Amino acid sequence: MESIWWHIFDILGTAAFAYSGALVAVSRRMDIFGVFMLSAATAVGGGIVRDMLLGNVPPVAFRTSLYGGIIIAAMAGAMVTVWNIRAKRRFSRMMAALFWLYTICDAVGLGAFSVTGTLLGCHYYPQYGLFAVMLGVWTAIGGGIIRDVFAAKIPFVFRKEVYATASVLGCVVLTGCFYTSFLSLPPASVLACTVTIAVRLLAVKRHWNLPLIHRKRHRPYFFR
Amino acid sequence: MESIWWHIFDILGTAAFAYSGALVAVSRRMDIFGVFMLSAATAVGGGIVRDMLLGNVPPVAFRTSLYGGIIIAAMAGAMVTVWNIRAKRRFSRMMAALFWLYTICDAVGLGAFSVTGTLLGCHYYPQYGLFAVMLGVWTAIGGGIIRDVFAAKIPFVFRKEVYATASVLGCVVLTGCFYTSFLSLPPASVLACTVTIAVRLLAVKRHWNLPLIHRKRHRPYFFR
Amino acid sequence: MESIWWHIFDILGTAAFAYSGALVAVSRRMDIFGVFMLSAATAVGGGIVRDMLLGNVPPVAFRTSLYGGIIIAAMAGAMVTVWNIRAKRRFSRMMAALFWLYTICDAVGLGAFSVTGTLLGCHYYPQYGLFAVMLGVWTAIGGGIIRDVFAAKIPFVFRKEVYATASVLGCVVLTGCFYTSFLSLPPASVLACTVTIAVRLLAVKRHWNLPLIHRKRHRPYFFR
Repeated sequence: MESIWWHIFDILGTAAFAYSGALVAVSRRMDIFGVFMLSAATAVGGGIVRDMLLGNVPPVAFRTSLYGGIIIAAMAGAMVTVWNIRAKRRFSRMMAALFWLYTICDAVGLGAFSVTGTLLGCHYYPQYGLFAVMLGVWTAIGGGIIRDVFAAKIPFVFRKEVYATASVLGCVVLTGCFYTSFLSLPPASVLACTVTIAVRLLAVKRHWNLPLIHRKRHRPYFFR
Repeated sequence: MESIWWHIFDILGTAAFAYSGALVAVSRRMDIFGVFMLSAATAVGGGIVRDMLLGNVPPVAFRTSLYGGIIIAAMAGAMVTVWNIRAKRRFSRMMAALFWLYTICDAVGLGAFSVTGTLLGCHYYPQYGLFAVMLGVWTAIGGGIIRDVFAAKIPFVFRKEVYATASVLGCVVLTGCFYTSFLSLPPASVLACTVTIAVRLLAVKRHWNLPLIHRKRHRPYFFR
Repeated sequence: MESIWWHIFDILGTAAFAYSGALVAVSRRMDIFGVFMLSAATAVGGGIVRDMLLGNVPPVAFRTSLYGGIIIAAMAGAMVTVWNIRAKRRFSRMMAALFWLYTICDAVGLGAFSVTGTLLGCHYYPQYGLFAVMLGVWTAIGGGIIRDVFAAKIPFVFRKEVYATASVLGCVVLTGCFYTSFLSLPPASVLACTVTIAVRLLAVKRHWNLPLIHRKRHRPYFFR
């Protein structure tokens, strides 16, 4: 999997998620180390668990300082962004722009990591198709889950709009192409990444939601 | 460990925990994906970490779609249960029935997973008896811990009645039988599972609690 | 790495962290099992994840009952400490003494685990210098992160004073000595441990803090 394609998707996803993690950390008033940790957890946390699930130790993220560099650059970008917002008068307009910047970065990270995880799953254990899909989804959403657990919140992927579903669609497309040989891997990767990003952005734009099981608040007394 | 006995306990525990996890998620107003994730975390989360501790990758839960099927069936069951409760007039009576249904399922999962974890520990690293016990306990309570971390709560196993203790007893019984060859593994497994379930249900019925270290609220000022 | 030096640092760190974890758990009104679990999570949680990152299974902490013994002794110590505090009249003076006891134990654990993690990283994968540093830092702070996640709090290492930074300094010193052969490993370990403890205690004494990115509360509306 040491192809140039894999690395492009990996770097793209790392940068996008590091930026989104740093934005959350800055908004939570963490110190510089906290911002770095949350940013790193979002960007490489999913990949570290992915490598532990694959038995591929030490995790790729620890083998080179490339990821550290990407994360520090993304942190700097996020700080500049937040400082700019605070300096500007037209707050609501800036916030709308920032919202879309954040959402697009996040969707790009989701698509790119769905592809890298699925490719690794297919490469290491081609006999388990389900594993490739699950690994792709975990790589894409795991970083965000770890970030939210560290921020002591319910992981938003469990309650928000079509997020993991977009990743599942991309992973299924890529795994399907791998097993049926319908497309070779580079175009299939681009296709899967595009599907995930498109579904995710459309879901935000059009307010798609998965059905809740029930809407009214109703908490049986035996769960505290 | 690929015996039929191991699989029976494994499927039993998975179904029971998936059902309990789905009940919690539905009561937390998660969407369908969130219910699936919480249900899956409870049912196979402990087992995935167990396999990572054993170096047994990819984790068993990702090798077959059997677990996915069990979880989806349990989710459907939990949704039907909650819908039924809301439709019924006699709320308090239904809740009492549901409480016992939940408690019994949970105890069955606890007993079954204590057995599967201990058996795997004894099988992979027979030289470390303590490891087998710890692995059994983790497999049994790990799913619930992960579920509570994802729900942003203090894991209830740290504060509730005799829960992990029941699992420890079962695991010690099974590990003891394994090392002393007092019983062969199938009857010892049934015995250990029964011990865990009985201790757990008795603890709920009779309100057994482990002693708190101190009852009054008392938080030294240096812990925030 | 099976040298006597490694074990001395390991036992020192385990005892110090088990004590600190038990203090937190007692202050959170957990039952005896909860205190044991939180104490164990703090003392060996970082090391278990470290061993999973190294592919060194089963984790060292499960191979011997030594760690269990240390944790139980530390629990007993923490309970006695808390009971003593509640019995004494001169509360504020006792609390100040306890605060320094806690801070010193915690700093000792931080220094000792920075050393053990870095040594293992250098030993297993000498080709990845960054990995050794990251492994040392994770071993030192991972237990505290896991403890705080289980206590449903934001890990304090993300918001507090110079804590992880002290560990990073120690790990860099030790990794530097390893690669440059400037000192042999035993004196380098003592040096790195001393650096970490000294920086950490000075930071508490002099109220050093890393800069916050911004001080005023400012939470963009799109993060909930």
